[in-house]
Amino acid sequence: MKDPLLFTPGPLTTSATVKAAMQRDIGSRDADFIELVAGIRSELLRIAGVSREQGYETVLMQGSGTFGLESVISSVVPRQGRFVVLANGAYGERMATIAERLGISTRLACWPENESPQPAAVQRLIEEEPGATHVAMVHCETTTGILNPVDEIARIVKAGDREFIVDAMSSFGGVSLDLSKLEIDYLISSPNKCLESVPGFSFVLARRQALEATKGRARSVSLDLLAQWEALEGNGQFRFTPPTHALLAFARALEELSEEGGVSARVARYRANHETLRRGMHRLGFVECLPAERQSDIIMAFRYPDNPNFRFEDFYRRLRAHGFLIYPGKLSQSDCFRIGTIGRINEDDLGDLIAAIGEVLDEIRR
Amino acid sequence: MKDPLLFTPGPLTTSATVKAAMQRDIGSRDADFIELVAGIRSELLRIAGVSREQGYETVLMQGSGTFGLESVISSVVPRQGRFVVLANGAYGERMATIAERLGISTRLACWPENESPQPAAVQRLIEEEPGATHVAMVHCETTTGILNPVDEIARIVKAGDREFIVDAMSSFGGVSLDLSKLEIDYLISSPNKCLESVPGFSFVLARRQALEATKGRARSVSLDLLAQWEALEGNGQFRFTPPTHALLAFARALEELSEEGGVSARVARYRANHETLRRGMHRLGFVECLPAERQSDIIMAFRYPDNPNFRFEDFYRRLRAHGFLIYPGKLSQSDCFRIGTIGRINEDDLGDLIAAIGEVLDEIRR
Repeated sequence: MKDPLLFTPGPLTTSATVKAAMQRDIGSRDADFIELVAGIRSELLRIAGVSREQGYETVLMQGSGTFGLESVISSVVPRQGRFVVLANGAYGERMATIAERLGISTRLACWPENESPQPAAVQRLIEEEPGATHVAMVHCETTTGILNPVDEIARIVKAGDREFIVDAMSSFGGVSLDLSKLEIDYLISSPNKCLESVPGFSFVLARRQALEATKGRARSVSLDLLAQWEALEGNGQFRFTPPTHALLAFARALEELSEEGGVSARVARYRANHETLRRGMHRLGFVECLPAERQSDIIMAFRYPDNPNFRFEDFYRRLRAHGFLIYPGKLSQSDCFRIGTIGRINEDDLGDLIAAIGEVLDEIRR
Repeated sequence: MKDPLLFTPGPLTTSATVKAAMQRDIGSRDADFIELVAGIRSELLRIAGVSREQGYETVLMQGSGTFGLESVISSVVPRQGRFVVLANGAYGERMATIAERLGISTRLACWPENESPQPAAVQRLIEEEPGATHVAMVHCETTTGILNPVDEIARIVKAGDREFIVDAMSSFGGVSLDLSKLEIDYLISSPNKCLESVPGFSFVLARRQALEATKGRARSVSLDLLAQWEALEGNGQFRFTPPTHALLAFARALEELSEEGGVSARVARYRANHETLRRGMHRLGFVECLPAERQSDIIMAFRYPDNPNFRFEDFYRRLRAHGFLIYPGKLSQSDCFRIGTIGRINEDDLGDLIAAIGEVLDEIRR
């Protein structure tokens, strides 16, 4: 039986060739693997529009995206520092939870889930927080699919002379972003989102100058960002066993991004996926949770339909039987579900999904 | 070109069918995946000779084995606790480094790398440390391949009413071990050692009663052992994105362990691998670093040969050209290299390796 197509925020459907790249066992301290890792690290900088010469570095970290986030938070905020999080969803709030657990002095500033942090308010917040050393925000908040104005906020944070941490988990590679034009010190993302590879690690793009100044700050050995970077720079190896197969897949996924035409081509495909989804869902009477101008092309949240027979679990199972996996909601205020438009899927797949949703609605109405 | 066979402590050579199990993309919150994870968790208990009814639980944790170790140390030792590590190699010492970084009051008791912690000395140490809440030891110390007397030490630790943490990274599934007869509270291991799967996560077998008592102790969100267990128990899901492909591979690897005849059959294969290696290396004039009675069948450390032309890097590259990857040494006191005998390799492969080593020695002597 064929696996269902994944319309989720990840892990998502990857190409057969990305998965085929995992059909090897390579030594984690061997020259072949060291070369593979070096290639991945350079390519990620290239995708972000920066280079080592411009002062940027890539650190790969084992674990999921959340481990990468905790790696940054726990390794860069000094003991006497203060961490300000600008949140409009569950992933922003999670950064504050991570920092609080680590005993870091934290301020969580929340906006409604369907609104972005307002530049003027952020400006005031930073003025109110002279002791804040680090400010963090999510680029595309997967809770709703909202795209936050990372460029405007970056300027404000930098003007206030603080370091800026961006969770670009769901956006990197799927939203145009030129790191050289943005004042971001640490950007965290994942191979199993818009880069369309398999899960197993995360990566951090860091300004070298910021990273080098973090000596002695790390609160964890496993998640020590600076030590991980020093090891990758030193002998090219991970400090601890790397997920070799996931890295093989990722190297292939990065080649396929390039073969597709780079980030701009991928952005265009996701845009087309999104448009197909939006139009199709409107036709079926669904209402989205976000205003269109804030909506990313990554994932879309829809309100439950106004149908007394609608139960999400039932809807999910019926769609699954048609070969499509969608995602539950995560909003605190309203009943919604989510549909991702990233991964190795295209307009035709979205068209098929819409057709199946139409059939399932008919089944439910009956 | 065929990849070289891996004679390392892992990642190691896995079967083609284990790798083929990764040719799928499955949803991390879907019923199929939840069932897969539940099956893995039960099977690991079965392999350890215990059950949930006997009070044991499995927690899977993203990241490498070191992340699993840090997850236990950071989640179970209370703020006012004290952590005693019995070490005879780099991996024991690493546990102390992890605890110290976390600000845990730690005592590192070291033995020479070619000796195991002595029961009588451990007894005295525990008496000297009335405030010690947790004692930790490595089962098979990969630094040398030494097998530590975990059963004797467990009895002493328990008689002293402390909790016992065992790093069984390199031994679980490859050394006979019946958890029901041992007083171990937390045992940490990895899928990419004797269970012959791919890297990407670790697992912890825990006494439920001990685990349940750790509420409020976790110092990290990502590595929170209790929260991870509660999530796996609650909705069957990981809290954060799991390495779905590595878990698919692992489920297959556990099936293959069973098909091979279980742990006893695997122990016998590794024993035969080890014997072939030991005899062959002796024939070639190599001397091992450990006394035979302490040597495990997992990995063996050999001294550099008494040959002025021998350079490890050169030896390694030549063997690699023959299709075999070996491993550098990690001993602090002497020049050695290591050869692993675990993974999807058998006596014939070891025979081929020995023949290649013979040829390489001839090349070097020329």
